[in-house]
Amino acid sequence: MSGFSQSLKVKTFNIDSGKVICVLNEIDAKELGLFPGDRVEIKSKRTGKNCVAIVDITSSMVAENNIGFFNETTKLLGVKTHQLVDVSATPMIKSVDFIKKKMRGEKLSKEELDEIVKDISDNRLSDIEASAFMSAVYMKGFDIDETADMTKALIENGQKISFDVSPVVDKHSVGGVNGRATMIIVPIIASQGLYMPKTSSRSITSAAGTADAMEVLAPVNISFEKIKKITKEVGGVISWGGSVDLAPADDKIIKIEHPLALDPEGQVIASVLAKKASVGSKFVVIDLPVGVEAKIKDRKIAVRMARKFVEIGKEIGMEVEAVITSGDEPSGLAFGPALEAKYVLEILEGKRFDNLAKKSCELAGAIFELAGLAGTTKGYKKAVAILKSGEALKKMKEIIKAQGGKIDSSAKIIYSPLNQVFKAEEDGIIQDLKVHGFTKVARLAGAPANKKAGVLLHKEEGDKIKKGEPIYTIFAENKVKLASAISYAKGNPPFVLKTVVLKKIK
Amino acid sequence: MSGFSQSLKVKTFNIDSGKVICVLNEIDAKELGLFPGDRVEIKSKRTGKNCVAIVDITSSMVAENNIGFFNETTKLLGVKTHQLVDVSATPMIKSVDFIKKKMRGEKLSKEELDEIVKDISDNRLSDIEASAFMSAVYMKGFDIDETADMTKALIENGQKISFDVSPVVDKHSVGGVNGRATMIIVPIIASQGLYMPKTSSRSITSAAGTADAMEVLAPVNISFEKIKKITKEVGGVISWGGSVDLAPADDKIIKIEHPLALDPEGQVIASVLAKKASVGSKFVVIDLPVGVEAKIKDRKIAVRMARKFVEIGKEIGMEVEAVITSGDEPSGLAFGPALEAKYVLEILEGKRFDNLAKKSCELAGAIFELAGLAGTTKGYKKAVAILKSGEALKKMKEIIKAQGGKIDSSAKIIYSPLNQVFKAEEDGIIQDLKVHGFTKVARLAGAPANKKAGVLLHKEEGDKIKKGEPIYTIFAENKVKLASAISYAKGNPPFVLKTVVLKKIK
Repeated sequence: MSGFSQSLKVKTFNIDSGKVICVLNEIDAKELGLFPGDRVEIKSKRTGKNCVAIVDITSSMVAENNIGFFNETTKLLGVKTHQLVDVSATPMIKSVDFIKKKMRGEKLSKEELDEIVKDISDNRLSDIEASAFMSAVYMKGFDIDETADMTKALIENGQKISFDVSPVVDKHSVGGVNGRATMIIVPIIASQGLYMPKTSSRSITSAAGTADAMEVLAPVNISFEKIKKITKEVGGVISWGGSVDLAPADDKIIKIEHPLALDPEGQVIASVLAKKASVGSKFVVIDLPVGVEAKIKDRKIAVRMARKFVEIGKEIGMEVEAVITSGDEPSGLAFGPALEAKYVLEILEGKRFDNLAKKSCELAGAIFELAGLAGTTKGYKKAVAILKSGEALKKMKEIIKAQGGKIDSSAKIIYSPLNQVFKAEEDGIIQDLKVHGFTKVARLAGAPANKKAGVLLHKEEGDKIKKGEPIYTIFAENKVKLASAISYAKGNPPFVLKTVVLKKIK
Repeated sequence: MSGFSQSLKVKTFNIDSGKVICVLNEIDAKELGLFPGDRVEIKSKRTGKNCVAIVDITSSMVAENNIGFFNETTKLLGVKTHQLVDVSATPMIKSVDFIKKKMRGEKLSKEELDEIVKDISDNRLSDIEASAFMSAVYMKGFDIDETADMTKALIENGQKISFDVSPVVDKHSVGGVNGRATMIIVPIIASQGLYMPKTSSRSITSAAGTADAMEVLAPVNISFEKIKKITKEVGGVISWGGSVDLAPADDKIIKIEHPLALDPEGQVIASVLAKKASVGSKFVVIDLPVGVEAKIKDRKIAVRMARKFVEIGKEIGMEVEAVITSGDEPSGLAFGPALEAKYVLEILEGKRFDNLAKKSCELAGAIFELAGLAGTTKGYKKAVAILKSGEALKKMKEIIKAQGGKIDSSAKIIYSPLNQVFKAEEDGIIQDLKVHGFTKVARLAGAPANKKAGVLLHKEEGDKIKKGEPIYTIFAENKVKLASAISYAKGNPPFVLKTVVLKKIK
């Protein structure tokens, strides 16, 4: 705005603010005509480095003629306390105009989205600005061009990683509920010579994430180099995504979306596909669970999203198949890391073949079809055959060993002796097993932090049950949490038992 | 979400973050199932105090089993480093649901707006959440009910201040350009027994704010008690609003709106009227300058806003008159604190009667009419008579003295000897004096930080000028800034000189 420049003395604070900001005394801010949220250019004569920082203003934290830096800014400038820097006001950055443009409902170009993603990635946008952008995207949406351009911008501004093997395949579940399909799909796929280096998440609101459950069997905190090595050796990896930084811009966008649970469709698609592209995935199956308890409530929306996934995939040279699945009933009957891990091993060992096993074979089959390893509609049968033959179990044992784990059979996972069985009080039919209800009980019991805590169901939806038969068991690692979970479960039964006698009035 | 609670050791950081936040180590965050932006309830057993804080997550700044607090949180809990606090996850606060509701385009109720304003005021909303709210308001707008409810919410959540005098009157200019009408209106009004305790702003992007110009004549950093005393004594005050905290929620909203220059109409109206109501103003005149260089570009929008101002005023028991004025040409011919102060005194001394004087009398006249001190359409004449009689000058001298100032005549303000006169190179007519152009030149010359720097125009729009006559003069306090302003002015002439010969080609 104005042409002022001022020389100020650095005061460093050993704080990670996550943003490139500087703190000015209100007197200097007035002198420079600055307001909180404005930007300044800062130059260090000593190091020759410069950066643009967002202004915060204080009356006490930083004295007049001083300027406060947190770690991000200190590092960019390479300066120390008491050194001098030159500070001058800068005009708004271009991204801010593009954000305003989106707020007005106008379409953004590839170049404009690129600029925004670059600025988010380099911490140049304040939370206020980034939130305005995500709000605008949420409220105005991305059309198909913008979704494709956003996907490309995320890919270009992230790391591109090559696994030196081909073809790499992947699957992703959008807003799935529970169920560890990944731990069944990866060994099925890897046993046939395809490469599936999977990075999974830990639980945020569920009883266990794939990374939490896999961690019961083997370490999941695996460096990128090691992921590469294991993939070449055994074809598959199930690691925690947090240990490798694949898509820094996307992680920052998710952080902005989280507080208000914003999940604009276009951004979800761009975010998923960019992550897959960054690791060179060629064939990708997208699982879209639909149901009242799933993220996607409406089948029409799932169909629309499925088409977009396929179309954007084409644009970035990726073969995508989207599979719409039922997100209402639990996938598998276990809630909690150890319980889910044991459950998955039992499926691989041929001891169970339930809806989780079926769903996993559907998704693995879709990958086989995409990759040309099975004819159209033949994928599912191929996956089931591999699962039943024991090939998948053999591969899973190789993966566990390669990741440095030792728990490779369900028998090695012992249930916690601290538990409470809930039995049917009358004869009836089990109806409406509530995923969110069981998740809540499992978390109160200590999952996912307490690995052996959780809930195991003994019946599926539609099963007949006799009075006195067990419906589900809560496991915990300590008595306080067990009591808390029991108390909640009694007050909020996570299932409906349909009986002949509906109510007794005395 | 879950029922975990964990005992963590406090580590305080002497930092004002402006928000109630806490910093967790990523290991503890995982244990508690927390994500950045989530909320936790924190209890101190030692002090018995508790609060809800927004979570930030670090891998290094705070060790495992520790929790980092900045000053806001430390203060709320009354804790010290090494003390223990209990931390547990809390559900989303209600405001977040209401923000989502507004994002979906639904209308918010009084109670919902109240909750949001309360949370903003108490620093309970993160920048991400507050920005999403202002973005939604910007994109979806407030209807008349929401505008009225927002006004009331701001009033109820701010300080209410009584001046123990009546009637208190006020005026406000929405997005005005330059011109110190306030310094002319206050003495005209106060000379007639009405009370006008005016809190004004300092410049943000202009060459001087009213507070900057008044500060040339008298101190403007005046406590609330002193404002009250002076108002009772002499009827008027012209102080800096920053020295009293009238509307904390509104100040925070403006801070959120600033980076993207969001100015949703409904919020502007609510913000202005709430500030006036908080000091008990009974009669308020709103100046709405319209023009290509003003904030309001379109006359239709000004008319719509004017009607809303009047209507919302009625709802909160305030008599409002909105006056639409021309915002295109400069109000007064001075840019810079000392130049504008001198210019205003010259008007009060009867040495000038230009468009700034006329505009000031129009607005003062509207206040007289509202307050019943002049019949309809008679206000302007009354104001002009007071100005010409010297009554306003006498009152201004009293105000300056009461505020502790000594510069009470234009002769006491000496122009800086360091200046450069720009003369006409041909005969012609002055056209299109560009407010933004002169503002830029004045700021480059050092205004408003250098009080004596700025620009003085010698001609108004439409004036005839002869070759060699001065058009404007740049004043500066140092040679570097003078050179910088001259260089910019030569490259970007801030006016158009219409000549008979349009172009000469040799």
